[in-house]
Amino acid sequence: MSALRITVWGENVHEKKHPEVAKLYPKGMHEAIAGALRADPALDVRTATLDQPEHGLTERLLAETDVLTWWGHAAHGAVEDKIVDRVQQRVLEGMGLIVLHSGHYSKIFRRLLGTTCSLTWREAGEKERLWVCNPGHPIAQGIDKFFEIPHEEMYGEPFGIPAPDETVFLSWFQGGEVFRSGCTWKRGNGKIFYFRPGHETYPTYHQKEVQMVIRNAVHWARPEGRWLDSCPNVPWDQAAEKIAPQGETLHQPGEAGLR
Amino acid sequence: MSALRITVWGENVHEKKHPEVAKLYPKGMHEAIAGALRADPALDVRTATLDQPEHGLTERLLAETDVLTWWGHAAHGAVEDKIVDRVQQRVLEGMGLIVLHSGHYSKIFRRLLGTTCSLTWREAGEKERLWVCNPGHPIAQGIDKFFEIPHEEMYGEPFGIPAPDETVFLSWFQGGEVFRSGCTWKRGNGKIFYFRPGHETYPTYHQKEVQMVIRNAVHWARPEGRWLDSCPNVPWDQAAEKIAPQGETLHQPGEAGLR
Amino acid sequence: MSALRITVWGENVHEKKHPEVAKLYPKGMHEAIAGALRADPALDVRTATLDQPEHGLTERLLAETDVLTWWGHAAHGAVEDKIVDRVQQRVLEGMGLIVLHSGHYSKIFRRLLGTTCSLTWREAGEKERLWVCNPGHPIAQGIDKFFEIPHEEMYGEPFGIPAPDETVFLSWFQGGEVFRSGCTWKRGNGKIFYFRPGHETYPTYHQKEVQMVIRNAVHWARPEGRWLDSCPNVPWDQAAEKIAPQGETLHQPGEAGLR
Amino acid sequence: MSALRITVWGENVHEKKHPEVAKLYPKGMHEAIAGALRADPALDVRTATLDQPEHGLTERLLAETDVLTWWGHAAHGAVEDKIVDRVQQRVLEGMGLIVLHSGHYSKIFRRLLGTTCSLTWREAGEKERLWVCNPGHPIAQGIDKFFEIPHEEMYGEPFGIPAPDETVFLSWFQGGEVFRSGCTWKRGNGKIFYFRPGHETYPTYHQKEVQMVIRNAVHWARPEGRWLDSCPNVPWDQAAEKIAPQGETLHQPGEAGLR
Repeated sequence: MSALRITVWGENVHEKKHPEVAKLYPKGMHEAIAGALRADPALDVRTATLDQPEHGLTERLLAETDVLTWWGHAAHGAVEDKIVDRVQQRVLEGMGLIVLHSGHYSKIFRRLLGTTCSLTWREAGEKERLWVCNPGHPIAQGIDKFFEIPHEEMYGEPFGIPAPDETVFLSWFQGGEVFRSGCTWKRGNGKIFYFRPGHETYPTYHQKEVQMVIRNAVHWARPEGRWLDSCPNVPWDQAAEKIAPQGETLHQPGEAGLR
Repeated sequence: MSALRITVWGENVHEKKHPEVAKLYPKGMHEAIAGALRADPALDVRTATLDQPEHGLTERLLAETDVLTWWGHAAHGAVEDKIVDRVQQRVLEGMGLIVLHSGHYSKIFRRLLGTTCSLTWREAGEKERLWVCNPGHPIAQGIDKFFEIPHEEMYGEPFGIPAPDETVFLSWFQGGEVFRSGCTWKRGNGKIFYFRPGHETYPTYHQKEVQMVIRNAVHWARPEGRWLDSCPNVPWDQAAEKIAPQGETLHQPGEAGLR
Repeated sequence: MSALRITVWGENVHEKKHPEVAKLYPKGMHEAIAGALRADPALDVRTATLDQPEHGLTERLLAETDVLTWWGHAAHGAVEDKIVDRVQQRVLEGMGLIVLHSGHYSKIFRRLLGTTCSLTWREAGEKERLWVCNPGHPIAQGIDKFFEIPHEEMYGEPFGIPAPDETVFLSWFQGGEVFRSGCTWKRGNGKIFYFRPGHETYPTYHQKEVQMVIRNAVHWARPEGRWLDSCPNVPWDQAAEKIAPQGETLHQPGEAGLR
Repeated sequence: MSALRITVWGENVHEKKHPEVAKLYPKGMHEAIAGALRADPALDVRTATLDQPEHGLTERLLAETDVLTWWGHAAHGAVEDKIVDRVQQRVLEGMGLIVLHSGHYSKIFRRLLGTTCSLTWREAGEKERLWVCNPGHPIAQGIDKFFEIPHEEMYGEPFGIPAPDETVFLSWFQGGEVFRSGCTWKRGNGKIFYFRPGHETYPTYHQKEVQMVIRNAVHWARPEGRWLDSCPNVPWDQAAEKIAPQGETLHQPGEAGLR
């Protein structure tokens, strides 16, 4: 089996502007995430960032990507709509998408889900405990009943998402909130996984359980098929059945061109 | 109980350009649909069309609409994005949405579902038979096991939609195709129903079963609650639990403004 | 509109055997729940208990019940299978079902969901906070962002259920667990709501928010249609299409009786 | 990768009683299905039948089965409940289950779905055309837009199932009906696929497209994880959080034994 081709997309803004983020992630958060994935020899991992031409997400790169991971926060609005269109099309064709933390408000996540994707939040460095809702789920393999992150931003319900296909993790927060922290959807042929942890001011992506979940998730999200979208006309002489139309119709041949 | 406030939106393009459409729907397709709804005294029905200012869908009108029906075809691209934003927001808040026939390719339907919404099609005036998948569903009340439309455009699978919450109707076509013709979803607090029939060159909206389904659907889609979206910060001193954060954190107070 | 007919089913075992339960619920837990529902004049409320003939759930009573609530714990195994069959059939026809707390392990809940319905648990009188995942959901009306129960049994994930249609409440527990505390499903035409709180040694069913949720839930679960199940033969001469079978078939007329 | 272990279960009743079935399937329908699977070297295929001790489904055989296929019709009632319990438990743990044709009325399918699983039917040797609803789905790989079965029993809507996770195939019948012919669900960790074709009086299981779909389906249904069900007590001294219970509770230590 050839390696699964992963592209780790990072906004790469906080790392340049905030020294405490740069200290935690000296090569950028995307490189920390990519490094965690490179620990798995079955994965072929690249990175792409906002400041590159086409945000690094060229037609060619996306065509050669099996699963894309997405972290963004401060610059969601700077992502060009035409690139979002392109990523959406690839997800619908079959590319997997792993949306991380503040990516809940990214254009691509909201585009694919159609809802607000809002939530409540608090930055107080509190403890988060992520419970596994289904210990047999491939994304949870290697995780015990739960794992804890010592200091994280809080995200709380209500989370403005369509009902997930599966809820893999639920979070408990020290400050009293709960959250659907690991959720899956399928859109077109693309599998989507949202994973909550990863605020830029904490060393979350250096934690082994977080890395393990993301590795599991890219395997889970591997493409299973490909659907090249179209909206074809199938004229009567190509219809599967050759039953003669019954009686007269109001249809005029020239109208088929309206569409 | 006060009347349910319905807005019937019509593109109103074919009716003006194509005499055979105008003959079938002399006041426009939207008026035929509105007329069918007005037969129900529990409904308070208005219409709005593409050529009106703001396509007739002002903030005020939408605020006073419980359920919106949508028919468009030739001019999907002419609907302004800011109006689509507004309709989407109202659906997420709780307004019901009934998408009819070629509205499968409308901006609002694709926006809410996030997928291609593609399908195969053929204009040959063939027979369509719509089967009820769940005779107890409120949208199917009054319909027997199936009903037939003598002449319709064909829509066939694959239909590029997310898995519906419920499939109420499936269509059989004379030319050999099948289609998920009545599907429901919930997005935010808005209930969405897609109903396949209604090509402009056939008298479909004059047929009593089609009218009955649309009447049932607007009742089904009535708002049940209202959610005014927000993404609030809940600072530590307002947290539900007053447990002191444990140990040191990397968080600096000033960072909360990053978002 | 005539009143919605509610039957509150109670196992009524703990109340008789454990003085501290009897003290909290002197007329039985079922009467506390029924009393909360009777506060709504739109509801016509009866009770039924395990020790009655047919557990109080006669054919006639079920035929006249729109929504059934179910609380059981110590005596799940004593519920006769034929009564479970009867309740299941009524739910599939359209009767609503509200399953409370330890009812997660009742025969009827497991029968309808098909899964283990297992969970983790602890009796330590800890605090539970129930968060609303969708403030616009009809079952959550009147509840603020969350409500708290001062002392409850803990139920924790993993909860062995099929993915819910909607998750209305998530619980946070003082001891560190989380739980999907308010979940909906539709089976046949019946709407099902599982609501976690209600251990027999706490005054949970006297709490106004808990009562409000159960009142909301029975309204939400009202029947919307009725499907009398059957598996009918539709012989060829009654088929919707009169297309002659093409070529020879292996079918012999007498075989139709095999089924 | 070691081979996927498949058990093909067959009722094996019609084959012995009806000469025309025996002529089509001289070694039994289960051997025809098993033969189609053996064409794939990645599969290790066994069969089991109703007339064997424990219906051939011993604890050991099930423990060593990754995916089970099920065909039954005339003798659903003869399958012992304790064997159904055992199969259900294995599915919930993670074993895949492919239910074929008249297996829609098997105890195991109804047990896992919780609904009637009823449908309409007709034996008239008519043509069936199965359309692919999602060309990218792994179960549909190798199938073009549709495939046809020249002569089959008809199954029509309404099909009394919970809303499928995905609808992979829809059938068109010559006599005018439609049907959800390929549906998926997940229950516990087990993936379930229902596939409609396969009446005993037609050579359906000798058709290459039908064989291809079943081969695809067993790969799709491979176990992804394992969940050994339990309902554990997690006493306070083992709780994840060591927050002291606040105030007094009604709980008495001895009560924990009630469950």
